[in-house]
Amino acid sequence: MTNQPRLFGAIEAGGTKFVVAIGNERGEILERERFPTADPASTLAATHAFLRHRGKALGALESIGVASFGPVELDKASPRYGCIGHTPKAGWSGTDMMGGLAREFRCPIGFELDVNAAALAEYRWGAARDVDHLVYLTIGTGIGGGVIIGGAPIHGLMHPEIGHIYPRRHALDLGFEGVCPFHGDCLEGLASGPAILARTGAELRQLDATHPQWEIEADYLGQLCAQLVLTVSPRRIVVGGGVMSSPRLLSLIRPRLQHWLGGYIERGEVHASVDGYVVAPQFGDNAGVLGALALAMDAAAQT
Amino acid sequence: MTNQPRLFGAIEAGGTKFVVAIGNERGEILERERFPTADPASTLAATHAFLRHRGKALGALESIGVASFGPVELDKASPRYGCIGHTPKAGWSGTDMMGGLAREFRCPIGFELDVNAAALAEYRWGAARDVDHLVYLTIGTGIGGGVIIGGAPIHGLMHPEIGHIYPRRHALDLGFEGVCPFHGDCLEGLASGPAILARTGAELRQLDATHPQWEIEADYLGQLCAQLVLTVSPRRIVVGGGVMSSPRLLSLIRPRLQHWLGGYIERGEVHASVDGYVVAPQFGDNAGVLGALALAMDAAAQT
Repeated sequence: MTNQPRLFGAIEAGGTKFVVAIGNERGEILERERFPTADPASTLAATHAFLRHRGKALGALESIGVASFGPVELDKASPRYGCIGHTPKAGWSGTDMMGGLAREFRCPIGFELDVNAAALAEYRWGAARDVDHLVYLTIGTGIGGGVIIGGAPIHGLMHPEIGHIYPRRHALDLGFEGVCPFHGDCLEGLASGPAILARTGAELRQLDATHPQWEIEADYLGQLCAQLVLTVSPRRIVVGGGVMSSPRLLSLIRPRLQHWLGGYIERGEVHASVDGYVVAPQFGDNAGVLGALALAMDAAAQT
Repeated sequence: MTNQPRLFGAIEAGGTKFVVAIGNERGEILERERFPTADPASTLAATHAFLRHRGKALGALESIGVASFGPVELDKASPRYGCIGHTPKAGWSGTDMMGGLAREFRCPIGFELDVNAAALAEYRWGAARDVDHLVYLTIGTGIGGGVIIGGAPIHGLMHPEIGHIYPRRHALDLGFEGVCPFHGDCLEGLASGPAILARTGAELRQLDATHPQWEIEADYLGQLCAQLVLTVSPRRIVVGGGVMSSPRLLSLIRPRLQHWLGGYIERGEVHASVDGYVVAPQFGDNAGVLGALALAMDAAAQT
């Protein structure tokens, strides 16, 4: 008699792309597919089809994890648990991300905000596996953050929306109005990829090292890290996303974090050892789908 | 045979005053004494003397809770657990707040940051007893905040230091440099009692309702609440402290919170029902010592 390997479904439901995968309990992805996010019906149909056909080939799925773009309803007591809230993404407001999966696959389904799931992956297997209190940030088309406290993602009124805090404006950036459709010059409006593009016509990594945009970006992200130290007091901050693809940016953020803390937080982690406090993710673009795999494993363990 | 009533010691160790009390398991204070915070040796000696003499009169103390001004070491694995960190309060840096109590009273000692303890009291018995995810703010000589998630205060790198975030400057307040010795115009430097006094020569409640300081103060505190919604996503924000002694201020803060959120957080709690989202504490000045009592009860339960 042989032991069947345990298999889990993992869905990273992003605003621009879906990644659907089947993985094992060692956090390894065995098969994956990615496709652009279209309308909900056809996108979810493609998701189901992958899990149905590949799952049939590999073996039965024990559970499925969904890491979804937000806003999402995370309150299990709510009738809208597992649904997407009001989103500018056309057609997706109110979409039920779990119901169809539960009906077809009849297995436990784990559900989380995408950045909370990515935080979970880095916490369980990656750049924050030695701490149980961390923030995962993604700086890309938007700015988002997942917060894990005591090993579990924060769920409160809803979930953190860290990208929409208001940093103080940088002295070299006073004329830019910002690109956030809700807030104009909130952090996402000032420091996301589209904000950099709107100012400079380029991506950050394409700009000369002396271009002031580097300093402006590092200052805004340093303020973000400082705000997080002062409000949720993480033991590590993991910063990923497309804008971070130049490693130089991380080294510019750290001194700005220290500047904004003003010597007030006396912890070696944010001073002498700041290189180990604000860090790059281990999994890069894979954090989301690995987070979905972790959610699936947790959902299986809880039943 | 009669049941002895259970008795607990409670110490609110503030930067300007100590409150020492003996309470019961119903959250009732039976005896209390308050005295100004002097040097550590004489202040702690007075604290011990109260507990020793009044405890002898009432019965043995089952445990003691300490709610201390910060910064404090909350990591039980640290050799400095229970000690005050570097503080501008002369003579108190490094003071061990627990060791002497443990040696003399030989009972479990609970220890927390003062604002975390106050949050715990409002969570257990007060204005937030129906939610398990809240922030407690105190706006007074300084600005501090305690955060409770899943029923437990946040301990991370250290503890939140919410008073030192940087709000955007109000248009009517651009000339004021702020009073925080660390940061100048951080929130505490702009919106604490001493900041109001430095600008106007008066306390807020003494100023005419048309004085621009009302609008400035409400805007800064509305920004604070917005930052908290976006980072820790509490289900309620309880706002106390001397500056809040005029109930009018709370009603001015709520619309500023909504302004800074810009319609992004779609939860009835922060819109239609905002009166129930940003609220006054139930216990006012007593939250700290009641929090210490709750800490004592928790310490007894954990042994």
